[in-house]
Amino acid sequence: MRAAIVTFDGFNELDSFVALALLNRVPGWRAALCGPGGTVTSMNGVRVETQQGIEFIEQADAVLIGSGVRTRDIVWDTKLMARIRLDPARQIIGAQCSGALVLAKLGLLGDAPVCTDLTSKPWVMETGARVVDAPFHASGNVATAGGCMAAHYLAAWTIARGAGVEAARAVIDYVAPVSEKAETVARVIGVVTPFLGDGVE
Amino acid sequence: MRAAIVTFDGFNELDSFVALALLNRVPGWRAALCGPGGTVTSMNGVRVETQQGIEFIEQADAVLIGSGVRTRDIVWDTKLMARIRLDPARQIIGAQCSGALVLAKLGLLGDAPVCTDLTSKPWVMETGARVVDAPFHASGNVATAGGCMAAHYLAAWTIARGAGVEAARAVIDYVAPVSEKAETVARVIGVVTPFLGDGVE
Repeated sequence: MRAAIVTFDGFNELDSFVALALLNRVPGWRAALCGPGGTVTSMNGVRVETQQGIEFIEQADAVLIGSGVRTRDIVWDTKLMARIRLDPARQIIGAQCSGALVLAKLGLLGDAPVCTDLTSKPWVMETGARVVDAPFHASGNVATAGGCMAAHYLAAWTIARGAGVEAARAVIDYVAPVSEKAETVARVIGVVTPFLGDGVE
Repeated sequence: MRAAIVTFDGFNELDSFVALALLNRVPGWRAALCGPGGTVTSMNGVRVETQQGIEFIEQADAVLIGSGVRTRDIVWDTKLMARIRLDPARQIIGAQCSGALVLAKLGLLGDAPVCTDLTSKPWVMETGARVVDAPFHASGNVATAGGCMAAHYLAAWTIARGAGVEAARAVIDYVAPVSEKAETVARVIGVVTPFLGDGVE
């Protein structure tokens, strides 16, 4: 299983690195930071080398698009957007906070409920997306999460969808705070379970 | 307020970037990734440019030492350890998971209860530290957290200690999942409040 953690300049470190760290804890999975250049610089000025180019998105089994302070500009970059090739028929796709704008612009959100953060909400609504007051929602293979700390939900759903609920449970258990493991697992798995669909155990 | 987020090769992305992102949300604060070289490579192979050298630790008002897969080797590097100059009398100091080993080796943990993750626990206990089954503990200016997701507790405590509880509450509220903000703030602030001492409001 190969996952692309899509980052652009101005990216929110929480979103991208929570996703990368959690997905890489699944045996056999390889989640890589990918972006349009050799490096990306975060919203707090941290320069990071990408591990894969933007073309990796098309090859990945799972694609998670993080948030950032420049997403509104990025979605108007038609050349860049044309390089983001997603196929919800065969890929597990997710977006965090303003990342929902990217999915909206690519026509992947349809009429489904969409989650995003409160700052991005008006911009996502402008695209015609139906933003709901919830931390996480998925319709089929496409999920959205709202609020940085909902990154755990998006990662857990991605893992559950690709490797089963037990794999997601094991990863959350590992990263959960000491002495709060059972309640953390119950909370995270409880949020994502309604969105796993039939046949996922 | 200047904060050093201390990272070494093999660092855990969750710890360092949760701390960096949360502390940088406090008005007037500047949290910088710092390490012994110009770049550090994470446990999942992400190469990141440091924003400050290791000497910045001595100048910082707050210092948070993250976890990583090489901490056990790092604490035996006497030259490197000699460059980590901490003063709990004037600095807010925290360690995440295996980062407690660094504080133990520097003699900063004393007899106080110490938190760390379950993997690092036996190594931290070997130093003579009193490891407890809790996600967070602080004694005066020195705090430890156990489990990656306890990074939010360590960051919230650091902010509360340096800028007051209301500042910590505001940051957690911002990053909390949509529609779970009140309960997330209550949980995080509830964990750290007993460790803020007198005079911090």
